[in-house]
Amino acid sequence: MDEFASIRHWTADRQGENWQQRRGVVRGIGDDTAVVDAALAEDGVASPKRLLLAVDTMVETVHFKQSTMRDEDVGYKALAANISDIAAMGGMPLHALVSVSVPPAYTPERMRRLYDGLYECAERYGVAIVGGDTTSSPGQLVVAVTVTGTVEAGRELLRSGAKPGDAVFVTGAVGKSAAGLHALLAQEREQRAGERLSPAEFSGTGEELLVLAHQRPNPSVRAGRLLQECGSCRSLNDVSDGLASEAWEIAEASKLRLVLNEALLPRSGSLAAYAAKVGIDPLEWMLYGGEDYVLLGTMDSQDADGMRAVFHEEGLPFFIIGETEEGEPGVVLASGSQSQGDKRGPSTHSCRRIELKKRGYNHF
Amino acid sequence: MDEFASIRHWTADRQGENWQQRRGVVRGIGDDTAVVDAALAEDGVASPKRLLLAVDTMVETVHFKQSTMRDEDVGYKALAANISDIAAMGGMPLHALVSVSVPPAYTPERMRRLYDGLYECAERYGVAIVGGDTTSSPGQLVVAVTVTGTVEAGRELLRSGAKPGDAVFVTGAVGKSAAGLHALLAQEREQRAGERLSPAEFSGTGEELLVLAHQRPNPSVRAGRLLQECGSCRSLNDVSDGLASEAWEIAEASKLRLVLNEALLPRSGSLAAYAAKVGIDPLEWMLYGGEDYVLLGTMDSQDADGMRAVFHEEGLPFFIIGETEEGEPGVVLASGSQSQGDKRGPSTHSCRRIELKKRGYNHF
Repeated sequence: MDEFASIRHWTADRQGENWQQRRGVVRGIGDDTAVVDAALAEDGVASPKRLLLAVDTMVETVHFKQSTMRDEDVGYKALAANISDIAAMGGMPLHALVSVSVPPAYTPERMRRLYDGLYECAERYGVAIVGGDTTSSPGQLVVAVTVTGTVEAGRELLRSGAKPGDAVFVTGAVGKSAAGLHALLAQEREQRAGERLSPAEFSGTGEELLVLAHQRPNPSVRAGRLLQECGSCRSLNDVSDGLASEAWEIAEASKLRLVLNEALLPRSGSLAAYAAKVGIDPLEWMLYGGEDYVLLGTMDSQDADGMRAVFHEEGLPFFIIGETEEGEPGVVLASGSQSQGDKRGPSTHSCRRIELKKRGYNHF
Repeated sequence: MDEFASIRHWTADRQGENWQQRRGVVRGIGDDTAVVDAALAEDGVASPKRLLLAVDTMVETVHFKQSTMRDEDVGYKALAANISDIAAMGGMPLHALVSVSVPPAYTPERMRRLYDGLYECAERYGVAIVGGDTTSSPGQLVVAVTVTGTVEAGRELLRSGAKPGDAVFVTGAVGKSAAGLHALLAQEREQRAGERLSPAEFSGTGEELLVLAHQRPNPSVRAGRLLQECGSCRSLNDVSDGLASEAWEIAEASKLRLVLNEALLPRSGSLAAYAAKVGIDPLEWMLYGGEDYVLLGTMDSQDADGMRAVFHEEGLPFFIIGETEEGEPGVVLASGSQSQGDKRGPSTHSCRRIELKKRGYNHF
């Protein structure tokens, strides 16, 4: 198949013309560039919005292997990772362009499955696929996805807005994706190399949720919008590279320290059970496991309870996990006993404070 | 160097804050996404413009080798190819995002040189680099660049607008890049493999212009703007994949035939000289050699002379090379004697007409 025939095979009849028009698409796949309405109106009314632009790349053997991700998972996750970047700005994702460098091993049918996953994610998050580029690759599959999104002008949630005394929050459990990857790699070692695994094969073991978290992550678009609308969120990041690493990015951009309270970190039941089963400290995955795509941020501590209520009303998790303080940029994990103050006197702290390293996430 | 340090090393102090602000950049490299002004105002005044989005990818050993492109050439050309897509819509390029998948052989210094070339191209065409993604690569270097641009709403120059009886034009000589690649590969065979070559080494041989055309192509942004402004250009494409292939794209999108007159195809002197020297028919390069990044299009034939005058005034080349006609989509090369009509009677045609294949451009 030539390039155009391939692209048609992957993309035709996926997103209707009307569906794309509602997203401002004037001309999608098939010309030199896509054409989208710069006014980016909603309901036909121009609004003072800004454009968000991001690109994220997945490389075979670096970010995934055939034994950890099916082709459709690769497509789904490549787009999901990008949508998560838009969510981390408090924005709404709109358009995507897909660049694939395809090695010979990827047959048209495999690529079709990859696009199945990509369009599944696009439909779920209302993203219009408007273009791309296809090249051959002598080595690994490389998928680079670019996304656009919009955000109300001046209301984008940057990493640099945190202030001392802010509450630090996270919008979901962390470490599940890394634990899921561990389960997939463990199963690979027990089986023939190269055999594909799916969450279904973990069904009933309690590990399917971890595998699903790794293969089909859910970017936190709604959570990002709630945080953007509330007006008291001061900094925001998505947890793509591990909680410690993302906290470091906020600390450095905002020039302060984040103190995370170990006891407040949300623990997933399936994560705890799997960690106990394989004899690994779940904290390692929670701090240094990437690709959970929940949001980590800071906000005015006075509004934290109200924010939790808003999230609760929407059925979304929200956890206060620490606070910010002045000082050299860094991230601290506080643990150990901490008695709340009562009538007899002030609170006493006998915390251990460990400086967390900046280290990011390595897949393999 | 970690990812952020690398990105700083490649990008810091390249484009001033004011320079980026004038291009609507609110937040460039360094957060989850870039933030750009969706109003895309020029001189602070909002105008009814549309956003153009395109991505183009270069893969080592598929699109270039160390013996044909220096690292800085790779960076320059990766962006230039994208800018050319914006030019082919009649638009103005604005922003770029850069995704690089970096194999171990690419030291920080080599990547720095790649970014030198990238920023050189960005400066030349006024493009703001606003983001990107960096991953490792176990195999080849992969550079995927995404660009945005703007075009006056409803005035974008698509491939699908050609009408029967249009004049077919091209905005410069074709085949030079492919001939330059041939010269580089010939020199590689004579030398030690892997040694880097530059246009300077061809200096005085007459081939340096061909090598330069291959390593440092000039996208035709100004030409695209002139065609967009004139109002009589009906279809447009950039010659990235060879004249025949691009003509086919217009033919299929517009559902008609393009008849190219061999005698009217612009021939570069350096191309003719080099072709004679190595005993190759230059027509092969002119029809099937890619990456010249001139523009191929069709326009109302009555306005063709006026358009030529406009281009002439700007010091830009412009050649009428054929016409469109009704029929099954296809591309024809007409050649042979053709006597102009004179007082004694109508013109007589004794042309050979060859159907050109759809075949695109292969580098190696």
